[in-house]
Amino acid sequence: MRHLLAFLLLLLSVVVPQAARADTGYDLWLRYQPLDRRQADAVQHRAAYLVAEGNSPTLAAATEELRRGMSAMLAPHSFAVAGSAMRNGAVVIGTPQSSPIVAALGLPLAKLGAEGYLIRSATTAAGARITVIAANQDVGVLYGVFAFLKRVQLGQSLDNLDIADAPRLKVRVLNHWDNLDRYVERGYAGQSIWDWQKLPDHKDPRYTDYARANASIGINGTVLTNVNANADVLRPEWLAKVKALAGVFRPWGIKVYLTARFSAPIELGGLKTADPLDPKVAAWWKAKVEEIYRVIPDFGGFLVKANSEGQPGPNDYKRTHADGANMLADALAPHGGVVMWRAFVYAAENPDDRHKQAYTEFQPLDGKFRDNVLVQVKNGAIDFQPREPFHPLFGAMPRTPLMMEFQITKEYLGFATHLAYLGTMWEEALQADTFRPTRGWTVARVLETPVEPGAATGMAGVANIGSDFNWSGSQFDQANWYAFGRFAWNPEARAEPIARDWAAMTWGSDPAIVDPIVAMMMGSREAVVNYMTPLGLGHLMATGHHHGPGPWIADLARPEWNPVYYHKADAVGIGFDRTATGTNAVAQYAPEVAAQFGDVKRVPEQFLLWFHHVPWDYRTRSGRSLWDELVTHYDRGVGTVAAMQASWEGLKGKVDDARWSEVRDFLAIQRQEAGWWRDASIAYFQSVSKRSLPTGHAAPPHDLDWYKAIKTPYAPGNGK
Amino acid sequence: MRHLLAFLLLLLSVVVPQAARADTGYDLWLRYQPLDRRQADAVQHRAAYLVAEGNSPTLAAATEELRRGMSAMLAPHSFAVAGSAMRNGAVVIGTPQSSPIVAALGLPLAKLGAEGYLIRSATTAAGARITVIAANQDVGVLYGVFAFLKRVQLGQSLDNLDIADAPRLKVRVLNHWDNLDRYVERGYAGQSIWDWQKLPDHKDPRYTDYARANASIGINGTVLTNVNANADVLRPEWLAKVKALAGVFRPWGIKVYLTARFSAPIELGGLKTADPLDPKVAAWWKAKVEEIYRVIPDFGGFLVKANSEGQPGPNDYKRTHADGANMLADALAPHGGVVMWRAFVYAAENPDDRHKQAYTEFQPLDGKFRDNVLVQVKNGAIDFQPREPFHPLFGAMPRTPLMMEFQITKEYLGFATHLAYLGTMWEEALQADTFRPTRGWTVARVLETPVEPGAATGMAGVANIGSDFNWSGSQFDQANWYAFGRFAWNPEARAEPIARDWAAMTWGSDPAIVDPIVAMMMGSREAVVNYMTPLGLGHLMATGHHHGPGPWIADLARPEWNPVYYHKADAVGIGFDRTATGTNAVAQYAPEVAAQFGDVKRVPEQFLLWFHHVPWDYRTRSGRSLWDELVTHYDRGVGTVAAMQASWEGLKGKVDDARWSEVRDFLAIQRQEAGWWRDASIAYFQSVSKRSLPTGHAAPPHDLDWYKAIKTPYAPGNGK
Repeated sequence: MRHLLAFLLLLLSVVVPQAARADTGYDLWLRYQPLDRRQADAVQHRAAYLVAEGNSPTLAAATEELRRGMSAMLAPHSFAVAGSAMRNGAVVIGTPQSSPIVAALGLPLAKLGAEGYLIRSATTAAGARITVIAANQDVGVLYGVFAFLKRVQLGQSLDNLDIADAPRLKVRVLNHWDNLDRYVERGYAGQSIWDWQKLPDHKDPRYTDYARANASIGINGTVLTNVNANADVLRPEWLAKVKALAGVFRPWGIKVYLTARFSAPIELGGLKTADPLDPKVAAWWKAKVEEIYRVIPDFGGFLVKANSEGQPGPNDYKRTHADGANMLADALAPHGGVVMWRAFVYAAENPDDRHKQAYTEFQPLDGKFRDNVLVQVKNGAIDFQPREPFHPLFGAMPRTPLMMEFQITKEYLGFATHLAYLGTMWEEALQADTFRPTRGWTVARVLETPVEPGAATGMAGVANIGSDFNWSGSQFDQANWYAFGRFAWNPEARAEPIARDWAAMTWGSDPAIVDPIVAMMMGSREAVVNYMTPLGLGHLMATGHHHGPGPWIADLARPEWNPVYYHKADAVGIGFDRTATGTNAVAQYAPEVAAQFGDVKRVPEQFLLWFHHVPWDYRTRSGRSLWDELVTHYDRGVGTVAAMQASWEGLKGKVDDARWSEVRDFLAIQRQEAGWWRDASIAYFQSVSKRSLPTGHAAPPHDLDWYKAIKTPYAPGNGK
Repeated sequence: MRHLLAFLLLLLSVVVPQAARADTGYDLWLRYQPLDRRQADAVQHRAAYLVAEGNSPTLAAATEELRRGMSAMLAPHSFAVAGSAMRNGAVVIGTPQSSPIVAALGLPLAKLGAEGYLIRSATTAAGARITVIAANQDVGVLYGVFAFLKRVQLGQSLDNLDIADAPRLKVRVLNHWDNLDRYVERGYAGQSIWDWQKLPDHKDPRYTDYARANASIGINGTVLTNVNANADVLRPEWLAKVKALAGVFRPWGIKVYLTARFSAPIELGGLKTADPLDPKVAAWWKAKVEEIYRVIPDFGGFLVKANSEGQPGPNDYKRTHADGANMLADALAPHGGVVMWRAFVYAAENPDDRHKQAYTEFQPLDGKFRDNVLVQVKNGAIDFQPREPFHPLFGAMPRTPLMMEFQITKEYLGFATHLAYLGTMWEEALQADTFRPTRGWTVARVLETPVEPGAATGMAGVANIGSDFNWSGSQFDQANWYAFGRFAWNPEARAEPIARDWAAMTWGSDPAIVDPIVAMMMGSREAVVNYMTPLGLGHLMATGHHHGPGPWIADLARPEWNPVYYHKADAVGIGFDRTATGTNAVAQYAPEVAAQFGDVKRVPEQFLLWFHHVPWDYRTRSGRSLWDELVTHYDRGVGTVAAMQASWEGLKGKVDDARWSEVRDFLAIQRQEAGWWRDASIAYFQSVSKRSLPTGHAAPPHDLDWYKAIKTPYAPGNGK
């Protein structure tokens, strides 16, 4: 006893100083906090040691993660990696190929595919009660291990387990809009975590933690570079750096992808053209792709932004997007690579409603893309606004693999300091019914259903990850990274349970912590919609950096860059008529959807001004006039933020002080900026509507010119 | 006993997971690692608890730092903050004003000034053996506390203490070349730590740790913004952000300063001129300064880069630097602020040797500056090269306060990944004898000696601090921040003991750790000199970002931007003739110095090519020809890096693995880039000298064109 005590004192003396450090949030949702003693006893009864057979890098990663997580959570119980001793409490992980034990269990793995897993309680012939985590491939074992660790983190029972799960989409990727100088376009979390200058020689330990976090939520690919692409990343000295990252990520089931600048054959190859139908161009790409695969044998492929916002592309040579994508796809196909080709296009010389342009350009190309092309479509037709109706291309290209592009980074939702959980936004988009071909074909179902057996499916998320200690710029933005992974794994998922899982793992599983946090999260995106873009408004932000309100902006070179293009407020009313009397964008949807969106009586009020120009005195469903309803929404948004502040005050002392204080500060910034949006927007729209504010709603404290004069030129993330 | 055990187990279960985290180096030299048991017992015998009277923010900071450090180092002993109970082992801190106990001790504080401190062992009237840390001002107590903590960290005895120390310079400041968008010019440690976007509402806890680290080495000021200045920081909304930082720093004895863009009256004030003799201009600055002091009552003052590399300044209006500086000084004087006016000037239209221009322009202004102006002079006459002779202005302006400007960030010494301890460079500069007015007037003595009693003195260091977890871009670059503070406190300090203190506090006090680390550090800067700029060469780097060698560069717009301007290599020889047969820059030094530097036989060989153009077959002191000696130096530099790598391998397992691995990787990068410098430089100079390499020295593996073709356009820190 005295020796034990002395040892504990010694151990304490070693570890206390580190424990005194403030919690930065670096550990994300993989905190592996010690369970309370009762829980630890119960878990240890079922999971006391690990039996891992096989020695692939992925199985080694799974083994180490399980050891690391369980050791931390079960302390002071130990959780050892044992040989193959099958006593009670063994956790056996492996595939039938890697593990004779797993093979002998004869598990029903067939339906799980390459990435699925199975977690089962079992009893050995000798009577030992064990848990098995099995899969067809090593990466499935890894995913199973993370699922098992999550159960333990959440305090869920390990008795009588019979779990089988597999991802519903094949390509689950992050898109990093990261430049080679570490500037992150639309990044609000510091610099790029890719420290190119020190690669390939120094592999920051953070790369491994990045891979662990992604693997824990099923992300299996990452596009390292900005869609506004730089051809230099395709040079040999840069491919050596990419190779180093790929080597770190590989054990975690993550492939690297790069953005391909369409004009690279000119810039790097010295060709006179990048015409995709020019044989020399195709040959250049073929050789470049072969070079890449020599360096990175499991390279994932290319993401391309072409003929969009100044990027070069096949249209420069009067070729179609399909011509461009297919040329790259042909180069990649022999190696198993894919092309993710963005549908985010709108042309400087096209006077048509920007909402319609992607559909107009891409829908006729349905069926014309190679099998290894995925067309990557943003959730809405404009650009990641706080709320947009679903993109009309979903369901409209039945012969083309479409993948979803969500934006995790909050370019239009307040940057890092606004608490906005995007799970609700994504659920809304995924559960929207396209009616193509018939009722029930939600966006999720469109995404999940391969255009033919074995065809590609996928989802991309524009990353919110940077060099900040907390990765995402704020503690709560970690939830958006987490939720993206969960939706990419299962587009049928729901935002609320995802928020609940994240909150419990990140802040503590006590319901007194989880419940108020989940409530804050679930209402948070609607708050942003209300104080920025209520009732179907959109694209009202300041120019360039997109920080703060700018509904009055009308002087930018291209019409569709100006907020006034979108809200069209005038003395009579407000809103963009996209019905048959206007641009008829509604006609791009299925007839059932078009009928609903196109009818001012039937359109969901949240999309009212997206599709209709409506008089200021239009009677909304609340009975209030549109003007009064608009003002009410602005105040409701600000009020929700104030309520979040009050909720957060109640959590003081229940969560660690460092993270609590950061969130408190950020909520104060959000409250202030929500008020800024509200006041500036009302001041502007009032200057147009000439209406007085409804009773009980305060006038903006300053006049419109005061708001117009606010400049924040150094706001982060501007696309340089 | 059982309760204690249960408690300890509980505590362990809480702290163990955090302890598992990799060490990033975030804690700098303030790690406060637990002492071994024997040492802890000895320390606890002398220092068991803290008696702190008084309640100023600075004393509170001192108290908390002492509690934090001692608790961590003495664990499992406690170190409590007690009332005024004077038992054995009390550590009493305070000033005669704050503490009746201190006042009663009648300590000899008179000579310590405002910032000095005294640490003494004492016995109370009642016979209690105590330690007292006392000062005239609270900030002196804070410095004393850090000095006391350092003794404990270093394992030095606390018996019979009788220590008195005070800084020899008044203004000890960091210069952050940080832009308002968080880009750091010449920054190799990530972004600026000033997260302006979230200020003033969110004060990152890192600001406090920054202040703690600076206070621990006696730094008492920080210039927050880039010398290539942006007037916007003087706007009210930015001053609110500056105020928030000032509030964090104030308890730690640190004042904030800003860079003043000379044209701000035009840019912000709408004036037509920034002429310093225009009364409207002076009035604008007076009002602006008053506005600043209303917001920040202890604002430190301005740092100005004027008429230098494109910055606006008084010369634009045919006024002198004194005119400009004095105008600002007059605005600041009523508030106690100072102007730090940089002497780093060279003019586009001036064909004279760049080495001479600062002296030519500033020396005649001696005596013409206001009392609250310090002229800030770089250590050498060009620009922070790996080795430069001391700046001829030191000693040449006896009626003007001159402050030193050192560059901590390694713009010209390999960025973050080259291990180069700059203490030796700074000692060399500070110990150089100016012979002005007579022998023995070293640069240090010039700096330390006020031009009249009470006049300002100072030292500035261009910070190497950024958002990287390790603050400085590498573990070893922390040593340069540390050493700068030590030299600013005492310019007579020596590099070796500073390195020893830093190594012990940062890596571990075991001589088996300290000795090899100090040996590496002490030879490291000479290694960089040898593989980059041997024998008095300088300014040979690539353009813009300054990453890598570019001795062949000859095509830049201004002559003095080109490396060929500096080395002047030709078929006959190499070196810049700055003697009477050349530009006669030597004449700017005192006659004794000029005689030495100007004589090819007497000039220290390390400055040979700085002052002389010498034939390739000139016989050097080693007996080798200059060409052979040059090649020998290049190889010696690379060899030193290889030796550092070997030393570091020997430390594996003796220091923590995370930091060890980072240093190992960086040394590998350094080895590779040292080879690149060596090979490229030799390939180039050989193309000029047409000489073959001496026996035993390998030819560069590639031809000159290969080295010329290397481009690293995304290297960090470029002045955008």
